Amino acid sequence: MTTPVIDLNADLGEGFGRWPLTDDEALLSTVTSANIACGYHAGDPATMRRVCAIAAERGVRIGAQVSYRDLAGFGRRAMDVPPDELAAEVAYQIGALDVFARAAGARVAYVKPHGALYNRTVTDEEQAAAVVEGVMLAGRLPVLGLPGSRLLAAARRAGLDAVPEAFADRAYTGLGTLVPRREPGAVLLDPETVIERSLRIARDGSVRSVSGEPVAVRARSLCLHGDTPGAAALADRVRGELLAAGVELGPFA
Amino acid sequence: MTTPVIDLNADLGEGFGRWPLTDDEALLSTVTSANIACGYHAGDPATMRRVCAIAAERGVRIGAQVSYRDLAGFGRRAMDVPPDELAAEVAYQIGALDVFARAAGARVAYVKPHGALYNRTVTDEEQAAAVVEGVMLAGRLPVLGLPGSRLLAAARRAGLDAVPEAFADRAYTGLGTLVPRREPGAVLLDPETVIERSLRIARDGSVRSVSGEPVAVRARSLCLHGDTPGAAALADRVRGELLAAGVELGPFA
Amino acid sequence: MTTPVIDLNADLGEGFGRWPLTDDEALLSTVTSANIACGYHAGDPATMRRVCAIAAERGVRIGAQVSYRDLAGFGRRAMDVPPDELAAEVAYQIGALDVFARAAGARVAYVKPHGALYNRTVTDEEQAAAVVEGVMLAGRLPVLGLPGSRLLAAARRAGLDAVPEAFADRAYTGLGTLVPRREPGAVLLDPETVIERSLRIARDGSVRSVSGEPVAVRARSLCLHGDTPGAAALADRVRGELLAAGVELGPFA
Amino acid sequence: MTTPVIDLNADLGEGFGRWPLTDDEALLSTVTSANIACGYHAGDPATMRRVCAIAAERGVRIGAQVSYRDLAGFGRRAMDVPPDELAAEVAYQIGALDVFARAAGARVAYVKPHGALYNRTVTDEEQAAAVVEGVMLAGRLPVLGLPGSRLLAAARRAGLDAVPEAFADRAYTGLGTLVPRREPGAVLLDPETVIERSLRIARDGSVRSVSGEPVAVRARSLCLHGDTPGAAALADRVRGELLAAGVELGPFA
Repeated sequence: MTTPVIDLNADLGEGFGRWPLTDDEALLSTVTSANIACGYHAGDPATMRRVCAIAAERGVRIGAQVSYRDLAGFGRRAMDVPPDELAAEVAYQIGALDVFARAAGARVAYVKPHGALYNRTVTDEEQAAAVVEGVMLAGRLPVLGLPGSRLLAAARRAGLDAVPEAFADRAYTGLGTLVPRREPGAVLLDPETVIERSLRIARDGSVRSVSGEPVAVRARSLCLHGDTPGAAALADRVRGELLAAGVELGPFA
Repeated sequence: MTTPVIDLNADLGEGFGRWPLTDDEALLSTVTSANIACGYHAGDPATMRRVCAIAAERGVRIGAQVSYRDLAGFGRRAMDVPPDELAAEVAYQIGALDVFARAAGARVAYVKPHGALYNRTVTDEEQAAAVVEGVMLAGRLPVLGLPGSRLLAAARRAGLDAVPEAFADRAYTGLGTLVPRREPGAVLLDPETVIERSLRIARDGSVRSVSGEPVAVRARSLCLHGDTPGAAALADRVRGELLAAGVELGPFA
Repeated sequence: MTTPVIDLNADLGEGFGRWPLTDDEALLSTVTSANIACGYHAGDPATMRRVCAIAAERGVRIGAQVSYRDLAGFGRRAMDVPPDELAAEVAYQIGALDVFARAAGARVAYVKPHGALYNRTVTDEEQAAAVVEGVMLAGRLPVLGLPGSRLLAAARRAGLDAVPEAFADRAYTGLGTLVPRREPGAVLLDPETVIERSLRIARDGSVRSVSGEPVAVRARSLCLHGDTPGAAALADRVRGELLAAGVELGPFA
Repeated sequence: MTTPVIDLNADLGEGFGRWPLTDDEALLSTVTSANIACGYHAGDPATMRRVCAIAAERGVRIGAQVSYRDLAGFGRRAMDVPPDELAAEVAYQIGALDVFARAAGARVAYVKPHGALYNRTVTDEEQAAAVVEGVMLAGRLPVLGLPGSRLLAAARRAGLDAVPEAFADRAYTGLGTLVPRREPGAVLLDPETVIERSLRIARDGSVRSVSGEPVAVRARSLCLHGDTPGAAALADRVRGELLAAGVELGPFA
């Protein structure tokens, strides 16, 4: 019997200048992969440098959390960016982060879209392709995303490693898709539930849907959240429980 | 007798989104080194990508034209940026440009500060050191600047190649420094004068100062301007006259 | 028989910092209403001040050309801005422009959305309502827009003056809607055609559709363009031909 | 014997989009004048609208906290902005805030520069004059600033009400100027000390300098801080102690 292995990813470096947000220090002791903001929705150069340095020191893998150009909206406003501009914007962000990853002795090792760009590329073929084009400009990097998304499909078509992730704090439909945030019960707040689901995802590749039946959730990474009070502590508890349950933690292969 | 060799550099990619500025296509047939804007004073990702592609195709060397973060002021407003932030901002810009240089099969090969950052680091020790720190984060790249500037001194101290440049369209004092722009006669507009001075700089390493005496201008690169009407055409004439006079043109060693 | 009267409007002040765009001086001798950019897609404070001063001096009415917050995309990228944020963003822009209008002895006298916000509010009920809410925050100002748009409907429901405009350089369908820009023939470039249609719109309230039949275009304002080479000159010719044909020009009542 | 009266001012609305900062709700129960960020160093339109609404409801006076255009540096980076641009930028911010003040049934009632602009205009004649010019564009508003500053002198020369303020949590030199922040002991953290000095400033117009002697601090407003943990609570204690000591609180006349 093989040991189950899973990657833990979270968004980091999401402050901007005077405004802190994520508890980067704490989360870098929890996750195995850090989705670092690159300046388009959050993240200033000094923060990017500091977070990359700590990540590299602790052996946490560095990922570029790319976004629409939208500091005022924190990248949560979907935008109709022409594909050629979007591809270039994605590459720009990866390159900017990579300089700090390299300076720390590491490299940007994967790409994950943020916020509205993440959601849009679940279904928008054109933008999914543009994001993948942007990734290719920067190198043949793995792409982290939602199972079944256009983004992962486009990444696979381009020959990139398409890495599906799961969410322990989000409700799933019977089809294995996420219940939209605006619906009641979409986000799970009870720590015990989140922990229990983390274990199920890591060990069984399955969660219980909102209607009660088990649905397959084949994920190579588990997304944790760290931008709300108590979230970093819960993320660390998830980590502890996974290890206690014999799950091995490590960057996706 | 050795053939004189000189590099020709100019600022490129200084449009932003809807707003074009520099005649990038034309200038890329004239210069041997392109100072490409990196998004902080000008330059959007799609433009950076396009200019890098043409530069690489034509064998023009790609340089990062780094700036204060100031689109509204085109990088012409000196700013008291704390050194650690300035260093990170410089590295960010270099990394962002490098992704497009690499995608085109090239690399960012040198760094030149823009506008107020260029002027400030002539005399400001702290900011000069911060720019050099930013360059070092991105790699041991040559730094292009004014002879006698704190910037070039800091670059040399850090073991970087400090490349002095000269201006054929600026008046020089007897000490070999530039006459400040706000003084009358600081900028030379007559094409014949500009051409004559270009030849003198390239062949003799010397120009006549405002008070008439010859002053040594030891430059490895000649800065041409392309952002005003007629400037690109004049730059190309300078190129032609230099070649006709037996000067060899090529990126600084 | 009454003299036909029409307003001529155009986008102005659409440069940003170092980058000029619209020929503001020339257009302010042509139009009767100036849609002045407010800093979100174009327009810096110094430009806003200058354009307001000239407009007031020449008796040209000042309108706030409000946009999504998108300098990099010139306001041409549709954005899913939450309604409360969009309303506040619209009000912010109107207030910012009004300070310069008042300083020049005038006032912001109407509002016209720009680019993607203009297009989106043709059909998007929620955003149309948000724009109108933003206008109401700033005062009971007239709203300029496309006949049949959700925007004008929302403005009317709110008790605002909803002012329909027409385009002499755009092809119309048989239903009186604009042929989308991406379709061939959508934009009319021939000066004589543009002039002939301007006269038809102003005198008869009608144009010939792409399929040849006449369609009613009841407009109280005619939109002229000034951001392409030759456009300002053509706009001025339209003005001259309208006057020569006995059409009275003046701000909409 | 007259009752001493003083105004309490604090910076508000200094979050930006996703990033909260100041505890606006709490501070609006403490202060009599609110310096509201206008979008250049902090403050998004929706926040400006909300803070103005609460301020108006509670009878707190609304002031425009104007800044350099520098979200990345929170307005803490001094900038060499040309005077005409700076004046227009100041007016722009005041106008933008005023739309929300008016919508709430109030008006922008005064102007206070933020951060580096505040510090720079203590000694920089040209920028002080530019700020005052910007204020005049927006109306003949009072200007809040440091006693002895060029800013207040320029405001007075322009016929504006120049309102001196004092700081209960900053050390003063024997000359009545502030001890620079970078020096040890410049910022007073002990709550009892801050309260005692607030009382002294309000009742006696005097504080003890770093070298021990009393120095006159004639202030019509007392600046409280609310952007650090515990600061809003301390500000409220200051308010309570002032009232208990018979000091009347109210907007400066």
